[in-house]
Amino acid sequence: MDELKQRILKDGHALNQQVLRVDSFLNHQVDPQLMHAIGEAFGKYFRKHHFDKVITVEASGIAPAQMTALALGLPLLIMKKQTSKILKGDMYKTPVHSFTKENDYHLCVSKKYLKAGEKYLLIDDFLAYGQVVMGVKSICEEAGASLGGVGIVIEKSFQPGRALVEEQGLDILSLARIKSLAEGYVEFLEA
Amino acid sequence: MDELKQRILKDGHALNQQVLRVDSFLNHQVDPQLMHAIGEAFGKYFRKHHFDKVITVEASGIAPAQMTALALGLPLLIMKKQTSKILKGDMYKTPVHSFTKENDYHLCVSKKYLKAGEKYLLIDDFLAYGQVVMGVKSICEEAGASLGGVGIVIEKSFQPGRALVEEQGLDILSLARIKSLAEGYVEFLEA
Repeated sequence: MDELKQRILKDGHALNQQVLRVDSFLNHQVDPQLMHAIGEAFGKYFRKHHFDKVITVEASGIAPAQMTALALGLPLLIMKKQTSKILKGDMYKTPVHSFTKENDYHLCVSKKYLKAGEKYLLIDDFLAYGQVVMGVKSICEEAGASLGGVGIVIEKSFQPGRALVEEQGLDILSLARIKSLAEGYVEFLEA
Repeated sequence: MDELKQRILKDGHALNQQVLRVDSFLNHQVDPQLMHAIGEAFGKYFRKHHFDKVITVEASGIAPAQMTALALGLPLLIMKKQTSKILKGDMYKTPVHSFTKENDYHLCVSKKYLKAGEKYLLIDDFLAYGQVVMGVKSICEEAGASLGGVGIVIEKSFQPGRALVEEQGLDILSLARIKSLAEGYVEFLEA
C-alpha cells in the first residue's frame, strides 16, 4: 500500500535493527484518515471470504481493525491482554510471549463472543514473531471456530512471523513488508 | 443520542447498582457502525470549537475517539496506561485512581505530541468519578496546552464525575446519561 509506505518513510523511525517506531501515526498518535484507507485496503482484499467477525488485540490493533470492520460491515472483537475486574466470567485464555516487548501476558476473550463454526479475520498493527497470530488461532480453535485470514499493517519480514503464518495455511495480507531496518534505513520488500 | 440509548436498553446489562456492562457493543465487542454514528454526533456538537487533536485513553476509548477524530479531521492521541519498553523517552505522566476497577495506574503520553497553546478534545467511553478527565487535564496543562471539551459515550450521572467536569468549566457532551442502575434496570436522565 503506497500511501502507508510513503508515510513510514516520512515519519517512521528505525530505532535499531529490530524496532520500527511509528508512534506518530499508528500506535500512540493515530492518523484516522490513514486508518480509514487501511481499512478500505483490507476490506477490498478480504471481501472474497465470508468472515463473521474481525478480531484484534488491544491496544494498537484497534484503530486499523475498527476501520476494517467498518469497511466489511462486521462486528469487531477486541481480545484483551489481561482479565480486568469487570470482565469476569467465562473466558478463553492463552499465554503469549512478546519477543519485541520482552514480556508475557494472557490473551483473553469472553466465551460468548466466539461461536463454533464461525470464521474470523485477525487485523493487527505489526507482525514480528507471529506469537499473537498463533495465540488468536489457538483460542478460535478452542471455541470450535477458525481463523481464516490475517491482515497486518506492517510486517517485519526479516523476523519469523510471516513464515509461521503461511505454514498454518492462513490467507495473509501485509500492507507494508519491511526487508531490513539496518543502519537506520527502512528497506521494503518488493512485491 | 437515541440510537445509543436503545442499544443500551437492548444489550446493556446492569451488573449491580454501579456497573453497566456494555461489552457486546462498546468495550469488548465493538459495533463499528454505532461508533461511526457516535463519532458523527460528537463531531456535530464539538465542531464549534477549534481543537487541535482528539485525545483518548487506551483501550476502551479508542473506538469512539477514532470515529470522532475522523469526523473532525483531526489526529487522535492515545494516552497509555503504563510505559511500555518501546515507548521510552520524554513522557508526561500523572497518577490516576480508578474507583470502578479499584486500581491505580499512570496516564502517560510522549511529550512530543502535546504542544503549548494547543486545545484538545477528550473522548472516553465512560464517565464515573471523573478521575481520567482530571488526569488528562492536568497533563495538558503541564504541557502548556489546554483541555477544552469532553465527550462521553455513557455518563453514570449518579456518580460525581459530571459535577467535577462542570466545575472545571469544560464543555461536556454525554451521549447517554444514566440516572440509576437500581434493581437491574437502566434509567436515563431526561435532557
